[in-house]
Amino acid sequence: MRAVVMHAPGDVRVEDVAEPTVVEPTDAIIRLAATCICGSDLWPYRGADEVTEPLHMGHEYAGVVEEVGADVRNVKIGDFVVGSFFASDGTCEICLAGYQTSCVHRQVLGTSGGAQAERMRVPLADGTLVATPGHPDEDLVPSLLAASDVLGTGWFGAVAAEAGPGKTVAVVGDGAVGLCAVLAAAQLGAERIVISSRHPDRQALAREFGATDVVAERGEEFIATVKELTGGLGAHSAVEAVGTHESMHQAIGATRPGGHVGFVGVLHDVAITGDDIFMTHVHLHGGPAPVRRFLPDLIQLIWDRAIDPGKVFDLDLPLEEAAEGYRAMDERRATKVLLRP
Amino acid sequence: MRAVVMHAPGDVRVEDVAEPTVVEPTDAIIRLAATCICGSDLWPYRGADEVTEPLHMGHEYAGVVEEVGADVRNVKIGDFVVGSFFASDGTCEICLAGYQTSCVHRQVLGTSGGAQAERMRVPLADGTLVATPGHPDEDLVPSLLAASDVLGTGWFGAVAAEAGPGKTVAVVGDGAVGLCAVLAAAQLGAERIVISSRHPDRQALAREFGATDVVAERGEEFIATVKELTGGLGAHSAVEAVGTHESMHQAIGATRPGGHVGFVGVLHDVAITGDDIFMTHVHLHGGPAPVRRFLPDLIQLIWDRAIDPGKVFDLDLPLEEAAEGYRAMDERRATKVLLRP
Repeated sequence: MRAVVMHAPGDVRVEDVAEPTVVEPTDAIIRLAATCICGSDLWPYRGADEVTEPLHMGHEYAGVVEEVGADVRNVKIGDFVVGSFFASDGTCEICLAGYQTSCVHRQVLGTSGGAQAERMRVPLADGTLVATPGHPDEDLVPSLLAASDVLGTGWFGAVAAEAGPGKTVAVVGDGAVGLCAVLAAAQLGAERIVISSRHPDRQALAREFGATDVVAERGEEFIATVKELTGGLGAHSAVEAVGTHESMHQAIGATRPGGHVGFVGVLHDVAITGDDIFMTHVHLHGGPAPVRRFLPDLIQLIWDRAIDPGKVFDLDLPLEEAAEGYRAMDERRATKVLLRP
Repeated sequence: MRAVVMHAPGDVRVEDVAEPTVVEPTDAIIRLAATCICGSDLWPYRGADEVTEPLHMGHEYAGVVEEVGADVRNVKIGDFVVGSFFASDGTCEICLAGYQTSCVHRQVLGTSGGAQAERMRVPLADGTLVATPGHPDEDLVPSLLAASDVLGTGWFGAVAAEAGPGKTVAVVGDGAVGLCAVLAAAQLGAERIVISSRHPDRQALAREFGATDVVAERGEEFIATVKELTGGLGAHSAVEAVGTHESMHQAIGATRPGGHVGFVGVLHDVAITGDDIFMTHVHLHGGPAPVRRFLPDLIQLIWDRAIDPGKVFDLDLPLEEAAEGYRAMDERRATKVLLRP
């Protein structure tokens, strides 16, 4: 089958690779309806992460079950399924508490063949995959794919920030995750949603997703603007969807005492001191989003056409053109690239 | 009147000072029934904080109202009252959300005369003071005094850590605040309470307050012990009641994914990285305890003799002997010193 393989920074090829097979009785094999390129795929692409061996890329997926291991009970051949980027057993105490990405048996997807391919193996299928109510209309596929990572991640950010009715939510980051956090905050009933963005396209999508205030400022100016909008107090909730030292401090600074910061950008070189969290009285919570916790609800919202997170994809390419997709994201010509096997 | 004045590190004297007076119409003047020495008073005593002018010490207090300003409505002359170490208006949005120590009009007590004195001025009396149901029996006074800081602080730590039924709570720190956090966790219904302590007296009091497991280990050994007690997962809740880099990391390390760390030790030289909080999936919350939020409930529990937090005082001295009280705490001969004017 065809799959995306990264041989070195900047060197992405679509190649013939071995078909995935059921290895464990808890595995499922799915045929991808769609997959996509993640911001985190750019780390090795840009050389920020080392590439010591050819990498089978991709961890976002939606598609049809073609094979299941002997122990799989919750999904069956022919089901259209969506899953999270970490496989989880769904039965341990940590999964039951809603932290499936910290499952005691979690497996990182992609280690035995990534999602940027025609087919893939999903371990722990019962705890990882969620079947849609039926075979989706074609136009729902991008949104279902978004649920497997960026929507679930933005949603967790908004939940961790305790976005809800009567609250002002500040969103730091206007990438696909930040935009999905806006959508989540709106669905959760937030009264006011402020996002910082300088890109006209993203500003427009943020407004469509529910942002009430789009400001161009960053850093201290963003913080000052949020305070001005909230009687000097700061936002009740802030979602950090970038992962840098600056964005984390922008989120903390924009939050009022007693407020909540949900951070979902993968943190790089972030340093937090006692001063940042002691006198500020903020709550901090985040990490790799337990997307699986939210998937049943997110799938239903998409199925009911209540939300349309698939709009974050602004470039749609055949899998064979994956290299161009990587270039477009690297050069910031695209926010999020969908690949069709 | 007599009051404790620190002239330089190690130089604490009891002196004649001016009587406090009503300055603002929202002030109250109280006669102290009891006051005490805080761990934080040792910072200037040990030279860790600079002493640039004579300091009127003390911020923990319980006593009788002797004078009120024209605008005071909630307490009256003759009331026995307890208050928090920060004055708060009780009416701003932050106070109403339960973060009175971040009140937009908060005032640090002690700046115009401390609590280690015969009388003191309490600003914003309506938002700061809580009257007890009547004049307390003498033996309740130490517990009511404890409510003004160490009990309220330990309680906030346990609440921030979301201690509750069915949960295992790890407490880091066996000072007065850590011991009160044990008491709070027990009152909040925690199933298992683990504290690290090496002092036989404190171990005994921890058990009396509700600790189910007292372990001598610190750091990585403490973390390993907590994990062993919790099926390898870690505690649901951890209370950090020291404020050092090591104790904060001990608390984070002892907490399971999705668990809560409540930190109430004043943080000194603490550095938290992305690795500490991203993949660990912990919730972090803390800061200066909004004691005022809890005071009505804590006073009632003390009044009903359901709790006896006054037991944290292991040295009881006349105010005139304050210098000996400071020495005893500095030399760790006492956990917490009560002073009687």
